[in-house]
Amino acid sequence: MIDTPRSNRLHLAIFGRRNVGKSSLINFITGQELAIVADVPGTTTDPVYKSIEILPLGPAVVIDTAGLDDTGELGEKRVAKAREVLRKTDIVLLVVDPREPVTAFERDVVQAARERGIGIVGVRNKADLWGWNLPLADDLRALNIPWVDVSCAMGRGLEDLKRAIIAAAPADWDPLGVVRGVVEAGQHLMLVVSIDASMPKGRLKLPEVQTLRDALEENVLCSVVRDTEFAEALERFPRPDLVVAHSLVIDYVARVLPEEIPLTTTSTLFARYKGDLVTFARGAVALDKLEPGDRVLIAEACTHCVMPTDIGRHKIPGWLEQYVGGAIEHDHVNGGQFPDASALRDYRLVIHCGGCMLNRREVMYRILACQEAGVPITNYGVMLSYLHGVAERVLRPFPEAHRALVAAGGHPRTIIELDGAALSV
Amino acid sequence: MIDTPRSNRLHLAIFGRRNVGKSSLINFITGQELAIVADVPGTTTDPVYKSIEILPLGPAVVIDTAGLDDTGELGEKRVAKAREVLRKTDIVLLVVDPREPVTAFERDVVQAARERGIGIVGVRNKADLWGWNLPLADDLRALNIPWVDVSCAMGRGLEDLKRAIIAAAPADWDPLGVVRGVVEAGQHLMLVVSIDASMPKGRLKLPEVQTLRDALEENVLCSVVRDTEFAEALERFPRPDLVVAHSLVIDYVARVLPEEIPLTTTSTLFARYKGDLVTFARGAVALDKLEPGDRVLIAEACTHCVMPTDIGRHKIPGWLEQYVGGAIEHDHVNGGQFPDASALRDYRLVIHCGGCMLNRREVMYRILACQEAGVPITNYGVMLSYLHGVAERVLRPFPEAHRALVAAGGHPRTIIELDGAALSV
Repeated sequence: MIDTPRSNRLHLAIFGRRNVGKSSLINFITGQELAIVADVPGTTTDPVYKSIEILPLGPAVVIDTAGLDDTGELGEKRVAKAREVLRKTDIVLLVVDPREPVTAFERDVVQAARERGIGIVGVRNKADLWGWNLPLADDLRALNIPWVDVSCAMGRGLEDLKRAIIAAAPADWDPLGVVRGVVEAGQHLMLVVSIDASMPKGRLKLPEVQTLRDALEENVLCSVVRDTEFAEALERFPRPDLVVAHSLVIDYVARVLPEEIPLTTTSTLFARYKGDLVTFARGAVALDKLEPGDRVLIAEACTHCVMPTDIGRHKIPGWLEQYVGGAIEHDHVNGGQFPDASALRDYRLVIHCGGCMLNRREVMYRILACQEAGVPITNYGVMLSYLHGVAERVLRPFPEAHRALVAAGGHPRTIIELDGAALSV
Repeated sequence: MIDTPRSNRLHLAIFGRRNVGKSSLINFITGQELAIVADVPGTTTDPVYKSIEILPLGPAVVIDTAGLDDTGELGEKRVAKAREVLRKTDIVLLVVDPREPVTAFERDVVQAARERGIGIVGVRNKADLWGWNLPLADDLRALNIPWVDVSCAMGRGLEDLKRAIIAAAPADWDPLGVVRGVVEAGQHLMLVVSIDASMPKGRLKLPEVQTLRDALEENVLCSVVRDTEFAEALERFPRPDLVVAHSLVIDYVARVLPEEIPLTTTSTLFARYKGDLVTFARGAVALDKLEPGDRVLIAEACTHCVMPTDIGRHKIPGWLEQYVGGAIEHDHVNGGQFPDASALRDYRLVIHCGGCMLNRREVMYRILACQEAGVPITNYGVMLSYLHGVAERVLRPFPEAHRALVAAGGHPRTIIELDGAALSV
């Protein structure tokens, strides 16, 4: 995997006066995460950029402005530095001590962010000391920004903070793109599609079109072949740097393709694009801890017939019971419904559809609710590739997700034979 | 060009009793057309299949059932032969002599076609002898099929007949597909796309997706690259059998691509797919006969802003006047409006949009109306490639259209510089 370029990461700038707990907040955000922290050294007043992976938000940069906080106001030099930071910032986290009155510092930060159209989230830190969900002081309310309570010491409030970050993120926030970080400019992506009579004439599946478009936008050279021409294309075309196969034909493609050529599926790319692949890989492995009698929640985002209705209602429960070796209690939610964290605690696992009807933000909220409840969540595509025994191969192009899978064994104890309809999710 | 396989041609079976004028009707249909007649020899009672190109309907097969007509009823052997014909038939043309009463023969044919869901058109032949548009006799009306009057001797009624054929054609009638006959199974089609910021994220242009889908369905190996990677792809990928470039980048692609590799544009493929490329090529060449003061009709099928509105209203008239060297009278129709043949006679040329909002059938009706009026018709894509000096190259993969163009000179007298917006039609 090619590391996500910094420009494509969500940039979070932490502003706050001295002693409000900026450093502990940064450690809190980065410390619990699958972090690849790469400190950029700076002088005392220079902001420090840390590249991290925030689950499930994806690649991010946390900007530590500790050097800019040593006075109640932004002096001229600090104003220039702050401007420089704000030019790169997607979201400002404004940290305050709720006992202290609002000063020109906070008002300046809010105004500067607002002028630039930058999202802003207020953080009342050390909530363990001052109390949770206290009424907002008048001067904080006057800033007219959303607030969350956090306790770094107690490790509480991170989900609320992430939710607020997602809500404040730019509307077109899309840190990954479908293929970003998996193939790069000048490389060759081979897309293997499956065409059957049931597909509307003149169309390709939307995820396939989106994969192509994103790859082309990244200056990738693409080839597109049906499974029937795959072997021939592999001989005649230059060696692909990545093969993306439709799940329906993954068995055949995996058999024909040399092991050393990276292979994944469109549904894996979209599990990453629409949600969080590491979380989903961990969730898939959680299947191995399921026992007969456990409760599982199956969530489908579409209320209409985009999905063959029997996948979620019948097939998946059937395969689960086959895998677990006994009856499973399965509940179902559809469309816009999704339980909150307290209701999710009743489940041992949440299995979500591909989410093609949801935007990334909505899927994030759902993953966060599961994290808050301490319930693993996976999605159809990742779970089925796990049950089908191909997850280890199709996750290889995504090192963190692959590591998460392999750490937990990486292979299902038995391989469940899936039928065609299931593989087309 | 690979000849259209017979299975993809519209099959018209001519039924009728002896002496109603079946042969003259067949000669009438085929004789006036750009016909590549390939008679399949048969015994006296065997039906004869003629492959022809009916403008603007496209590739067709006319089935001559002369051997089946020598009695008022279908005898057992003839019934078997007729069944065999009907299995391959899309539309039955039932030819009658309007002076003769309806017999079991006509009723059997109508019933047999109806049982099989085959379209049927009644033809009152020799209308010059018996009169045009006479009231339908009761027994003809009882057959409950549409009727047209034709005079092969006078050469009248063919447009009406074609219109009736189009109306009776199967709903999914699509004799060509986007790439059929231009590339074949196992060949390599390279699609060169142009991606600009104005395109919605995650999408390719619909004609590009449709080109890919149709090519894949024909078991063609596809590659898709941006113009920025085209030269590199040409070096690294196997030699393409056809390059399909977006009009926006055709200049560059034509310059880089060796002359011997077939090249066309998506808009040329779609001019053929949605309309009739031979007709449009002839229509483009008709630009050379335009003189200042001539009237031109510009037709856009979409009423909303799919097309930048200034293309039809301003840019095309501007280029025409530049080409003709004087003022042109230009009228405009939009959306579902289109004049009938009598109103079309006022024009020296009709210029139609790409027709992406119309189905092939509707474009056919419009072309037929122009043919009836004796007015040439072209479309945006073909005309602009002509004015831009690339028509000769991009029509080469379509021999009949290329021949029609070359016969009339093939090159514009001056090359009009077009801007980007125009080339994206």
